Amino acid sequence: MHTIDLTVRFCETDALGHVNNTSYFIYLEEARVKFFESLGFGVSTEEWNFILASTTCDFKAQGYFNDKLTVDTSVSSVGNKSFVLTHEVRRTETKELVAKGSATLVYFDFKAQMTESIPDELRTALTRHAARLPVESES
Amino acid sequence: MHTIDLTVRFCETDALGHVNNTSYFIYLEEARVKFFESLGFGVSTEEWNFILASTTCDFKAQGYFNDKLTVDTSVSSVGNKSFVLTHEVRRTETKELVAKGSATLVYFDFKAQMTESIPDELRTALTRHAARLPVESES
Amino acid sequence: MHTIDLTVRFCETDALGHVNNTSYFIYLEEARVKFFESLGFGVSTEEWNFILASTTCDFKAQGYFNDKLTVDTSVSSVGNKSFVLTHEVRRTETKELVAKGSATLVYFDFKAQMTESIPDELRTALTRHAARLPVESES
Amino acid sequence: MHTIDLTVRFCETDALGHVNNTSYFIYLEEARVKFFESLGFGVSTEEWNFILASTTCDFKAQGYFNDKLTVDTSVSSVGNKSFVLTHEVRRTETKELVAKGSATLVYFDFKAQMTESIPDELRTALTRHAARLPVESES
Repeated sequence: MHTIDLTVRFCETDALGHVNNTSYFIYLEEARVKFFESLGFGVSTEEWNFILASTTCDFKAQGYFNDKLTVDTSVSSVGNKSFVLTHEVRRTETKELVAKGSATLVYFDFKAQMTESIPDELRTALTRHAARLPVESES
Repeated sequence: MHTIDLTVRFCETDALGHVNNTSYFIYLEEARVKFFESLGFGVSTEEWNFILASTTCDFKAQGYFNDKLTVDTSVSSVGNKSFVLTHEVRRTETKELVAKGSATLVYFDFKAQMTESIPDELRTALTRHAARLPVESES
Repeated sequence: MHTIDLTVRFCETDALGHVNNTSYFIYLEEARVKFFESLGFGVSTEEWNFILASTTCDFKAQGYFNDKLTVDTSVSSVGNKSFVLTHEVRRTETKELVAKGSATLVYFDFKAQMTESIPDELRTALTRHAARLPVESES
Repeated sequence: MHTIDLTVRFCETDALGHVNNTSYFIYLEEARVKFFESLGFGVSTEEWNFILASTTCDFKAQGYFNDKLTVDTSVSSVGNKSFVLTHEVRRTETKELVAKGSATLVYFDFKAQMTESIPDELRTALTRHAARLPVESES
């Protein structure tokens, strides 16, 4: 599992007083990018290897301006050319679940403009971050 | 089915040259809001009746700066207190499918702060926008 | 003068109930891009010729969700390599001034990575959109 | 002077490969909010006391995805009911100036919906953050 911390920015809220739904996808992207960076991938646009095929977010509790949030990222599954990440957005202090997201990513060679098998090095790294059993049993 | 047209703004792209994934959720929210407005609901934050419980987006083709896009919104299902919308984002000219989204909404009384049964008037209006058969058979 | 119309999106508001200040810069960028497009410039990132050197916005009245706004763009001054645009954001119906922005742009050859003199064709086009006298006397 | 650190998010870039101009205003808002918080003000929307009357940003160098940036905030002037902040956005490591912003804020009683004289406590706090002489001589 990989974890990032963030604080809700004022411009990420909306007129209902909550964090706008679109802002959670900013947090999920941030979590993905930092996760890839922690694996040694994707730190520059010149060596980008991932296409986002799909993303989802379930909203479990309201987020507010200045909330301290933690996003935990795990790997749910790894296929031949794609893998699935699960994100849990929690209040940092209370651990209350605020949102639960997922992202399906395809390994992609941007120079050749085609999908590729996930290289062994990445597969090994992803497997190390496989979702723990308690998280799997939740879904 | 309800349809909106939009043009991709420059700030909605990212350094890979495409529309950023988070921008599609801006488009889906826009489509929802305009759909609710067309039904006579949700035009001001004082009389808001919907909570977004979940949203998803599958990315089918790349979007680019200045693309003319159309978002078609249909109702996939209507339950007692919630309903599901399906959105198809297409290039306006070629009808190419760029993204396919969904949103699960819960009918909510913000003053009482509790979920409520969908009123008959809204149920009737939603049913009128039920997804056409060819769309249903796709999923 | 060049004019665009837009409607405030829900995600462009913030928890104080107003249009967030950062959203106005989205509108100003939109106005610039459409203005350049109307002049036959800047419709794709491959042939981009403008660098934004500076931008400002004065906030005159609150904007709200779903507001219909009009952005009028005029040319305030044209130098050798740069020019200044003035934007007025008004409620479409009442013409109330909501915000007043400006942008200083430098003509730039992205391939050569250097500033360039504004070509005559562009200078002529810009001059046609010079701010009307009443606007000039304001500043 | 008050300082925050941030890292450029992927969705804050645009198709020209740089940080989009609108993203800098997100950073300036973040810097203001954290500055007010450090002074003991503005940490919740219920006790908000500031209206943004005007903001500007001069773009001095390109920012890129994943850049580590520092925003230094100083107080340029304090009037009876308003004050001006100056922000310098620099690359954290090299101190290169990336952008220079400003914000004019009006002290406002949201309950009474009227401007108010800056209270002594805030005036004293602002004065402690007055721009150092070298910064003033720059402008």
